[in-house]
Amino acid sequence: MITYDFSQRDGLPKYEYLFQCIREDIRTGALKPGTRLPSKKMLAKHLSISVSTVEGAYDLLVSGGYAESRPGSGFYISKRAGDYAAGGALQREPALRKPLDRPQAAPIEQVSPPAGLGTEPSAPGIDMHANSCSLELFPTDVWARIMRRVLSDKNPELFETVPFNGLPKLRRAIAQNLYEFKGMQVDPDCIVVGAGTEYLYTKVLQLLGASTVIGIGDIGFKKLTDIFMASGTLWAHVPVDSQGIDIDALAASAANVAHVSPANHFPIGAVMSAERRAQLLSWLAERGYRYIVEDDYDSELRFSGRTLPPLFTQDPTGRVIYLNTFSKTLVPSLRISYMVLPDALMDIYRQQLSFYSCTVSSFEQSALAEFIERGYLERHINRLRRFYDKQRERITEAIRTSGLAKIAHLREVNVGTHMLVHIDTRLPDTQVKAAARRAGMHLNVLADYCILPTADTAHTLVINFASVAPEQIGTAMRILEDIFADDIARA
Amino acid sequence: MITYDFSQRDGLPKYEYLFQCIREDIRTGALKPGTRLPSKKMLAKHLSISVSTVEGAYDLLVSGGYAESRPGSGFYISKRAGDYAAGGALQREPALRKPLDRPQAAPIEQVSPPAGLGTEPSAPGIDMHANSCSLELFPTDVWARIMRRVLSDKNPELFETVPFNGLPKLRRAIAQNLYEFKGMQVDPDCIVVGAGTEYLYTKVLQLLGASTVIGIGDIGFKKLTDIFMASGTLWAHVPVDSQGIDIDALAASAANVAHVSPANHFPIGAVMSAERRAQLLSWLAERGYRYIVEDDYDSELRFSGRTLPPLFTQDPTGRVIYLNTFSKTLVPSLRISYMVLPDALMDIYRQQLSFYSCTVSSFEQSALAEFIERGYLERHINRLRRFYDKQRERITEAIRTSGLAKIAHLREVNVGTHMLVHIDTRLPDTQVKAAARRAGMHLNVLADYCILPTADTAHTLVINFASVAPEQIGTAMRILEDIFADDIARA
Repeated sequence: MITYDFSQRDGLPKYEYLFQCIREDIRTGALKPGTRLPSKKMLAKHLSISVSTVEGAYDLLVSGGYAESRPGSGFYISKRAGDYAAGGALQREPALRKPLDRPQAAPIEQVSPPAGLGTEPSAPGIDMHANSCSLELFPTDVWARIMRRVLSDKNPELFETVPFNGLPKLRRAIAQNLYEFKGMQVDPDCIVVGAGTEYLYTKVLQLLGASTVIGIGDIGFKKLTDIFMASGTLWAHVPVDSQGIDIDALAASAANVAHVSPANHFPIGAVMSAERRAQLLSWLAERGYRYIVEDDYDSELRFSGRTLPPLFTQDPTGRVIYLNTFSKTLVPSLRISYMVLPDALMDIYRQQLSFYSCTVSSFEQSALAEFIERGYLERHINRLRRFYDKQRERITEAIRTSGLAKIAHLREVNVGTHMLVHIDTRLPDTQVKAAARRAGMHLNVLADYCILPTADTAHTLVINFASVAPEQIGTAMRILEDIFADDIARA
Repeated sequence: MITYDFSQRDGLPKYEYLFQCIREDIRTGALKPGTRLPSKKMLAKHLSISVSTVEGAYDLLVSGGYAESRPGSGFYISKRAGDYAAGGALQREPALRKPLDRPQAAPIEQVSPPAGLGTEPSAPGIDMHANSCSLELFPTDVWARIMRRVLSDKNPELFETVPFNGLPKLRRAIAQNLYEFKGMQVDPDCIVVGAGTEYLYTKVLQLLGASTVIGIGDIGFKKLTDIFMASGTLWAHVPVDSQGIDIDALAASAANVAHVSPANHFPIGAVMSAERRAQLLSWLAERGYRYIVEDDYDSELRFSGRTLPPLFTQDPTGRVIYLNTFSKTLVPSLRISYMVLPDALMDIYRQQLSFYSCTVSSFEQSALAEFIERGYLERHINRLRRFYDKQRERITEAIRTSGLAKIAHLREVNVGTHMLVHIDTRLPDTQVKAAARRAGMHLNVLADYCILPTADTAHTLVINFASVAPEQIGTAMRILEDIFADDIARA
């Protein structure tokens, strides 16, 4: 039976220590997906601990997605746990991961499954568009407790002006996190923390200089072009297909900077293929004045285990700028993003732009550092993944059992917090959106994200389910059935 | 004897209610500076409350600077309290101020006087330069408690994307505060909250457009020109004298935007005279493309009662942009600043720049709103003022009783967190700074803030006492005595 030395737990609560030990065994592959865990009673006896301690650890494993309870049968290492294993997605070196070296964890409150998304389940409005996240999912108690500790520590550095690129403690935690979960080896001094990705984009544009032309996908975040316009930066649109941006078109354009999200091209969810990545890196290497901006904004929430490492790790030229944010994975209202600059660019940043003060409160930086170090971020992301997984299933099932089944085609269902649904209809997208709005539902279509909407991109709903309460899904389906009633009747 | 109706206290703790009542009487002038308050025992009997309730209220009055305890004699309304009175500095209408309408106040912990400034009193380094503030002075417990309440309220708006210009609750609190303390009548919808003044400056520059030329004082924050340079904005230097910037020189320059801090021109502390203000507003009115950026960054910390109202309130053209920050008055690491735009400019901002997301965490915005609404900010500023007052006295006294007395001339001692000290010496400023640095003291001179240092601006130390521990002052004097030993010997 699994055996751990409780004399090594170094002040950790016993259930937390047991949880970490089992998790480590899952990661190293010592415990394989599908393995049945010992019964609580047996393990308690075997380790001379109480049954409630084992119960606490098993609860954490289940809430973290590492194990699942099968009623009447017991606890099993879950299939998904393989994603975290050594041979899994991220090619981590398990031996380097030492969760037990982490600072002493605070007690964790019991995490009940989210009661529902959306802020007012009974409200008439259904938001298939907002970038909000469930307040049920965010561990406010943990955050409040960490914040209280941060403040009561009265650490002098929190009351002084923070270094321009962020609190060292947070940058170290980010670097460690990038290493553990994406295999990136990053010097914390090359990380710049800022108040949101948009803010960091303006710094990137200043860093790259006035002669920059940015190549961006012809489907994507339209806000990017707002930022370019407001900053006086030129850009060129580059076609996007299911493998990412078209490199030939990029090379033929005036762009010297490529803006990409290889792990997940918003909103179509395209994962850049290995071949396309190699082409892009060749394009980069061809000219010394070319750069890549890699926005990895959502990759933590992807479900597939086939994640390729970030371009940043594959680049020998030192001209890939990596950006990511905690707004999607934690809570949108916490404005903390970061970028990783290659050494030479960091030197330039330090010389030319370090006069700009850091834009993030040091209290929240310090709290986030603890939140990461103590494993809460990882746990939170696992909860989000399971919740979004469930939401995706709920919506898929709701479509399947509705009148829409005959006319709806699900595309790219594996992209985090939204899915694309193509509808066999001749109703123009503008009419669909207007009808939805009249029915109290805020809904975007793929054409909203396209520079030049084409026949291919028409009639495709973007169902963002991050803010939709489970009990709203039925109503949403009724609204869509009404809108497409003629098409359903014809089908 | 003072009498209040405790049936009106509306859920407030009695001591808090009593404190607010007496404070209100001080403000309206019903209780004049120098008036002796009833003894605790007598007032308790008179109002049928406990002595400890009166004690709690008197403690708050003392810690807020409204009253002072004279040992053996009792409690007196303090002289400074006159600054807050109706006829005092701010020409407020006392009848409009209704502190009792405020939301129910949380219990306030007893505030012990700050033990000292500086983060490591025993460390060799003395920082006469940093923009930090005492961690002893910041009410971390109050902040932690408010933050916990903010988080546990699970207010849905905190988990959604915040409006581009900030949380409505915070903007309302700021508007109310501006009304109460500066007589500004401001629509909360015309306030833009951002992560620090530098961030807001970049938005102002975008708003004013590429053809802007900014006139700035030839003494001041050099970082401003860094920001202009990095944003590609042109600027012109305008001479500054003891009344503010020279308006003839401004008019003769290419500038169409005047950047001013009429309440306190950094670092010389010049308060713009009424005449100069009138000239500046005439300059503004002459051309429709002219603007004023009024940075009121430090005005809360000034001690003089002769504060003139902000230019923003005197401007009929709608072309004054008002900026202020909580970094100086609260804690530098909390990156929250705001600007107030006139209606027409706000419309343009909304049209052109509202796509930029708000850069401040909604948790901290909400906490700050409560901090303001419940009167903690005011109390904190009063503590800061008293502390800086004391620091100023300590340093003045230390100079007076040192060898420096013969060669040092104090100038502009009334400017918040620093003072200027002119030294009769021929030692070049660079040598003075280098010698200080070798002795472990970080010190700036006035020439550091001048575009063209002249004989007038030479040999003037800028003693920033915000981060200097009281017990470091003696050492600092010894270092300066050493540096100027020859001058002292000659004098």
